[in-house]
Amino acid sequence: MNIGTLTIVGVGLIGGSIGLAVKRRGLVERVIGVGWRRETLDRALTLGAIDAGELDLAAGVAPADWVVFCTPVERIAGQIRAAAAVCRPGTLLTDAGSTKAAIVRAVEGQVPEGIIFIGSHPLAGSEKRGPEHADADLLLNRLVIVTPTATTPTDAVRRVTGFWQALGARVQTMTPESHDQALAMTSHLPHLAAAALAGVLPPEWHDLTATGFRDTTRVAAGDPTIWTGIFTHNRTAVLDALTRFQERLTEFQQALTTNDENTIDQLLTQGKKVRDALGS
Amino acid sequence: MNIGTLTIVGVGLIGGSIGLAVKRRGLVERVIGVGWRRETLDRALTLGAIDAGELDLAAGVAPADWVVFCTPVERIAGQIRAAAAVCRPGTLLTDAGSTKAAIVRAVEGQVPEGIIFIGSHPLAGSEKRGPEHADADLLLNRLVIVTPTATTPTDAVRRVTGFWQALGARVQTMTPESHDQALAMTSHLPHLAAAALAGVLPPEWHDLTATGFRDTTRVAAGDPTIWTGIFTHNRTAVLDALTRFQERLTEFQQALTTNDENTIDQLLTQGKKVRDALGS
Repeated sequence: MNIGTLTIVGVGLIGGSIGLAVKRRGLVERVIGVGWRRETLDRALTLGAIDAGELDLAAGVAPADWVVFCTPVERIAGQIRAAAAVCRPGTLLTDAGSTKAAIVRAVEGQVPEGIIFIGSHPLAGSEKRGPEHADADLLLNRLVIVTPTATTPTDAVRRVTGFWQALGARVQTMTPESHDQALAMTSHLPHLAAAALAGVLPPEWHDLTATGFRDTTRVAAGDPTIWTGIFTHNRTAVLDALTRFQERLTEFQQALTTNDENTIDQLLTQGKKVRDALGS
Repeated sequence: MNIGTLTIVGVGLIGGSIGLAVKRRGLVERVIGVGWRRETLDRALTLGAIDAGELDLAAGVAPADWVVFCTPVERIAGQIRAAAAVCRPGTLLTDAGSTKAAIVRAVEGQVPEGIIFIGSHPLAGSEKRGPEHADADLLLNRLVIVTPTATTPTDAVRRVTGFWQALGARVQTMTPESHDQALAMTSHLPHLAAAALAGVLPPEWHDLTATGFRDTTRVAAGDPTIWTGIFTHNRTAVLDALTRFQERLTEFQQALTTNDENTIDQLLTQGKKVRDALGS
């Protein structure tokens, strides 16, 4: 597999990791990084994640055979439409955004003939940011969800699937809507809960936290701006997941209030069964 | 420091770790383990966590200079009272229970003259169980909360503090009630939230979890029976902590419902600030 010139828009943790991975694995001739700050591009260059840095989106994507958008979710659709207008026919566009339906809806029918966009989401996030945390093996054995629509050419799905697999990832295809419903529960709700747990901890008890609190709230260290974008993008599904979570908390509350040890034990046992099934 | 004969009641992860630690550090002449199953005692013996195993509590504590109770919280007070009746005068009793007020209240005034009990709580739990997960360095640099009351002799506080410090831990004294309020927020609520998050995850989405979900729910793998005991012991404080958490979730819900990005960002920023302050 050689995909020619790959342009990565947004060279942070994910974008930088993709750059390192394609170069180490010899999958590209050239990687162009597009960023908004020269300093970030220079760090990505120094780390070997990109071969050239561009501050101008159009200049960065014009020579590309493939473009991967690794920017905050609320910027991706606009950047795809802007890029598609200047890309060569045949260019394949995908992204790494944590939400899919809003992006796919905003792009569908808005790119010129011959330019193809397929949504992707590598489940390999981190609370860390920036190319200095990039890792050529970030996607190794991770899952990437690819979200084609009814109008996506089968051949393009095959190519995007092959791209992520070449980086060591497993690929699962889903509709953008199914993706967003699932991720609301598996990623967005845990983030919200972690932020809420951390947010209600009084300062005088900071020293009384141990590994349990720290594990449970680790993701709350993530960037608030990025996560505000994810939550607003996936508002409906996040609200649905939050409602299910609140109902379960109310069950705990009632069981505690009535000193109903059997129900508390059952609720804990159900949680343990699921957690044990996930492995470490 | 040589504390003579130490009896550990309950040789699981914590009890086994204390046994390994006192023996490696040469703090004792002899460690007796008391357990309910011969098999667990044999494993603790093989691992070198204890020198002798006893199925009978009275036989195990009668020769002791010190006794540490590392059993589920709902059993500790009864075992302390039973042990105190057969211990020699001068024996010092402490525990490793995750709740303190109910235990201290149930023991206070119920032990014979000359026997002293002081509550302790090493903040070094794990979702794992059993002496095979014991670690001589489990308490290294961890915090142990010691909860004397108005009637506890100062000298006994000093001795118990010295014991935990000799195992490498830092010690902070608090009232049993303050301990329980703080731990409801720093340990019991995160456990409840993790169990609720894991419990509402539908089976078909198990494969769509990544490190975020796994970190956030890790503690939910803990033993449901042990945690049911902790929750019922510390019911009032856990309910208070849960209410504060539910209020914060409602703030998120309202902000999402009204598409109020500023408030979402503020809530996430507050959580991040706290989480960043805790370190990794």
